[in-house]
Amino acid sequence: MIKKLRIMTPGPTPVPVDVLLEGAKETLYHRNPRFKKMLTSASEGLKKVFKTRGQVFILASSGTGAMETAVANTVSPGDKVITVVGGKFGERWAELCKAYGANMHKIDVEWGDYLRADQIEKALKENPDIKVVFTTLSETSTGVVNDIKAVAEIVKKTKAILVVDAVSGLIAEPLEMDEWGVDIAIAGSQKAFMMPPGLAFVAVNGEKAWKRIEESKSPRYYFDLRAYRDKYTDTPYTGAVNLVYQLNKSLEMIESETLEKVWERHAIFANAMRKGIQALGLELFAKKPGNVLTAVKVPNDIDGLEFLKVCREEYGMVFSGGQAKLKGKIFRVSNLGYVDKLDMISAIVTIEMAMKKMGKDVLIGSGVKAVEESLLEADEK
Amino acid sequence: MIKKLRIMTPGPTPVPVDVLLEGAKETLYHRNPRFKKMLTSASEGLKKVFKTRGQVFILASSGTGAMETAVANTVSPGDKVITVVGGKFGERWAELCKAYGANMHKIDVEWGDYLRADQIEKALKENPDIKVVFTTLSETSTGVVNDIKAVAEIVKKTKAILVVDAVSGLIAEPLEMDEWGVDIAIAGSQKAFMMPPGLAFVAVNGEKAWKRIEESKSPRYYFDLRAYRDKYTDTPYTGAVNLVYQLNKSLEMIESETLEKVWERHAIFANAMRKGIQALGLELFAKKPGNVLTAVKVPNDIDGLEFLKVCREEYGMVFSGGQAKLKGKIFRVSNLGYVDKLDMISAIVTIEMAMKKMGKDVLIGSGVKAVEESLLEADEK
Repeated sequence: MIKKLRIMTPGPTPVPVDVLLEGAKETLYHRNPRFKKMLTSASEGLKKVFKTRGQVFILASSGTGAMETAVANTVSPGDKVITVVGGKFGERWAELCKAYGANMHKIDVEWGDYLRADQIEKALKENPDIKVVFTTLSETSTGVVNDIKAVAEIVKKTKAILVVDAVSGLIAEPLEMDEWGVDIAIAGSQKAFMMPPGLAFVAVNGEKAWKRIEESKSPRYYFDLRAYRDKYTDTPYTGAVNLVYQLNKSLEMIESETLEKVWERHAIFANAMRKGIQALGLELFAKKPGNVLTAVKVPNDIDGLEFLKVCREEYGMVFSGGQAKLKGKIFRVSNLGYVDKLDMISAIVTIEMAMKKMGKDVLIGSGVKAVEESLLEADEK
Repeated sequence: MIKKLRIMTPGPTPVPVDVLLEGAKETLYHRNPRFKKMLTSASEGLKKVFKTRGQVFILASSGTGAMETAVANTVSPGDKVITVVGGKFGERWAELCKAYGANMHKIDVEWGDYLRADQIEKALKENPDIKVVFTTLSETSTGVVNDIKAVAEIVKKTKAILVVDAVSGLIAEPLEMDEWGVDIAIAGSQKAFMMPPGLAFVAVNGEKAWKRIEESKSPRYYFDLRAYRDKYTDTPYTGAVNLVYQLNKSLEMIESETLEKVWERHAIFANAMRKGIQALGLELFAKKPGNVLTAVKVPNDIDGLEFLKVCREEYGMVFSGGQAKLKGKIFRVSNLGYVDKLDMISAIVTIEMAMKKMGKDVLIGSGVKAVEESLLEADEK
């Protein structure tokens, strides 16, 4: 029987055919004036989604490469930094800072819980020599979205700069770099950009960040932001040409929907999924779930890995499992990027049917009813 | 009038439609078992083109990222290394080694000239504590191909490891990692692989290289080869899914032509181009030109940048100019990757016509005749 592939993972996300086809266009020489125009247009479009007047650099790398860019360019060995660790991607900040010899003040947040701004305030007060604060907008491993606006409010009064991992959050959740005072933010192509993986973005907002970058003594070359700034909007090394075509198409689609509507769509869909999950009698994992994905606790009587397999093999529906210590304990339903109402319906129905198939006593139709009602309610607003 | 784009630059190179279309296929989740199979198949195919039983890692980055991978994983601050600088990409090794605090012994080769193996021998004798020798197979900026086999013969008798930048050389020129004793070699997708830019490859051959990698104290994360080895053939960070589809297609095409025939094709085409250039009364730049590209001296009475513009605007033919100190002084005609006999004809005819148009006294037809004769002669062998 035909079984369509539906990826509702928080990256890669589904790619619209129009974006895919851009990738099949003839590869231009990367110094071709036509391609340079595309790079300029992409950088301008990126500024709009990062909400910054600063420069946004396009890297050929995954999101982790952009995270390393942020660390290598702002942390010299021995520098005091704050990392917030409330999931796998907060942990990645800590691993990176360790690799670069930072003197790390780690704020541990229970996985699934969220960062309180006063934790940052306290840490900065106790350590006035902190140079960089590394945080996460959307912690992809737990579904938590942190209040970056409140954190920025605090950090901007100090000498420290604020770096935000917005890899899965950007475009899905509001982030206003300039208005809030975020110094550096990073993102990746395979998330709300609705693109294949392979590009990452680093936005640098203003003098405070550049001063830090100039001061960093860590070795770097491919990820050296000074090289990107000097070549801007061109790239210092060969750009991933076809992915840049796709980026332009993606930015065009986002702009035509408007960024505000895209944020709203993510909020509506994530809210509907939460309602559906709860109506099914399942429990949300995140204490403060964001609008990027919904992390759901696997019921005790269900094998979490087997559940993912049933979803994938029976229905072609790909959810993500838990990472690291959450393996088998949660599953994650993404509504990130190119996802529509009926995709949300397909997701909740897959959950209902797979649970039923695995012997769980769920009321078939109860989840989907709640999702439908929530979507209808949003329409009325 | 219709003007087709023809890129005969040494990267990006023309991409076959069949490879482009692979990039337009549905993006799979990067942990999908189907995608993992593709990664395994790509890694196996890469071993064949690197001629190694060692592991070949696939990075989402440009070739420069792979060069940084080689440096960051083998050089600790203060380590004594040799870099061979005979062009822009040799210079890049030196810049990278400088960024990572190496104690560098630089072998300067006049741009356009080639490395003599005894230069390496002498340097290693005088500095027995050298840990890494960084060399270039095909120096893209000058068209020179170095005798890596002879260099490996020397280095393998010492404690040093040999790292080869084969970014533009691999698949176009013979490189036999295992047989010659090359410890680390790197390559990039937008060269003889006939793919868009965005992927880079790092081949690590054997214990001597891994020992060095284990010992390196340089900070690294995204480019940490230990992470790639531990996840092999999977990738530690999100792989550039669609580019990997294209890689598999490219490797399939190369395997069906056979690697030996691909080497031969590059040799035949480059030889024909050299004959054509000389028949036109133009001068080759490289003292020992390789089979990747042909670097040609711009005649004194011709404006080198204007010449490139005429080729591009009148004929849609994109050649590369000279880089850094060679800007305006040479132009480079690549026969790298997806290039056929009639592309070679188009290239030489463009040169003839553009020179004529710019007032140069060339004998129209003389270059193309020489290319034709050379191609016919190769057929008879």
